Amino acid sequence: MPIHYPNGKPYQAKAQTAPAAVEYGGRGMTLEQALNQSNDYYLQTHQAVVYKKPTPIQIVKVDYPQRSQAVIKEAYFKTPSTTDYNGVYRGYYLDFEAKETKNKTSFPLKNFHPHQIRHFADCLGQSGVCFVVMRFVTLKRLFVYPASDLIDDWQAAQTTGRKSITLTKIKADGFELQPKLQPPIPYLHGVDWLIQTKVGISHE
Amino acid sequence: MPIHYPNGKPYQAKAQTAPAAVEYGGRGMTLEQALNQSNDYYLQTHQAVVYKKPTPIQIVKVDYPQRSQAVIKEAYFKTPSTTDYNGVYRGYYLDFEAKETKNKTSFPLKNFHPHQIRHFADCLGQSGVCFVVMRFVTLKRLFVYPASDLIDDWQAAQTTGRKSITLTKIKADGFELQPKLQPPIPYLHGVDWLIQTKVGISHE
Repeated sequence: MPIHYPNGKPYQAKAQTAPAAVEYGGRGMTLEQALNQSNDYYLQTHQAVVYKKPTPIQIVKVDYPQRSQAVIKEAYFKTPSTTDYNGVYRGYYLDFEAKETKNKTSFPLKNFHPHQIRHFADCLGQSGVCFVVMRFVTLKRLFVYPASDLIDDWQAAQTTGRKSITLTKIKADGFELQPKLQPPIPYLHGVDWLIQTKVGISHE
Repeated sequence: MPIHYPNGKPYQAKAQTAPAAVEYGGRGMTLEQALNQSNDYYLQTHQAVVYKKPTPIQIVKVDYPQRSQAVIKEAYFKTPSTTDYNGVYRGYYLDFEAKETKNKTSFPLKNFHPHQIRHFADCLGQSGVCFVVMRFVTLKRLFVYPASDLIDDWQAAQTTGRKSITLTKIKADGFELQPKLQPPIPYLHGVDWLIQTKVGISHE
């Protein structure tokens, strides 16, 4: 028998409202938390050195209370000039952005900013290994998508007016990651694939 | 004939008191400003993509005034886990810190923090190109000093108790930079030298 509240309406469990919490290996983590934990794991196991860059802040006012730490009393978020993550893996420079969508059939291009596209182009020009970690939240699917393809999609969109990349294209041109317990997002598998297929330099 | 003030004392030009302003190509710039300008120059001329990381901030309180930008009302400076600069140059991962001293015969090790030494060791383990841009303010001399030597000096200091690296050693083991008009700090010359002498990987 359903439980009824005194007002006569049936009880309903409240919907989860935390917007970015996704399941990785059964634990509730945001994409950023899962990547930070993956970066920690890669660092501890000496596989790669990758950090998320701090959010850039414009500081306007700082107080220096006696005998204690400086306190920032007025500051503003600035637009980053680059992507969020970079680091080094077996001599390769890695540079990536992490984005997610609730869409089921395509990934909206509005997730990216012009300065990020430009930064990817700059880094590719120096033979960096550049990509996006794309999460389809509803589908629970995760891809490494090459920055070179993203730049092509972005430029094509200027003429075609398309506002997203189809899942079909992402499956064809990207590398699907299988979330694990540790690291929760094993993106180095996608990096190995990128190095083999895209990067025209050898470290040996 | 020397100029005398009415009190009979000879005129003396006042000492420059701005602590970090050093001359690069005749303009007053801090080491950070000179490096940022050099990074801009290298980016615009497609030679390298290097940025200073934002200062990490612990945000405690944010206000969202109506119809305007979010305002950070309480925040604190955090200790960075890494070095200040990283990026990519011809497929190589670059990672460096910039430090200066007013000493004339040695560079104090207290300019470096244990987490920076550890970070350098991590990045060297992944074949990154890691170094310090060292400025002797009074001598107006500028060096690229390899992180591998810094780590050796740091470890030796644990037993010898030495608190600094002699200028003699820095001249022998580092690479002296000649400040220019553009870029003010041409550190890629030191990077080329490091790649030739230290890095056991080839990109060709």
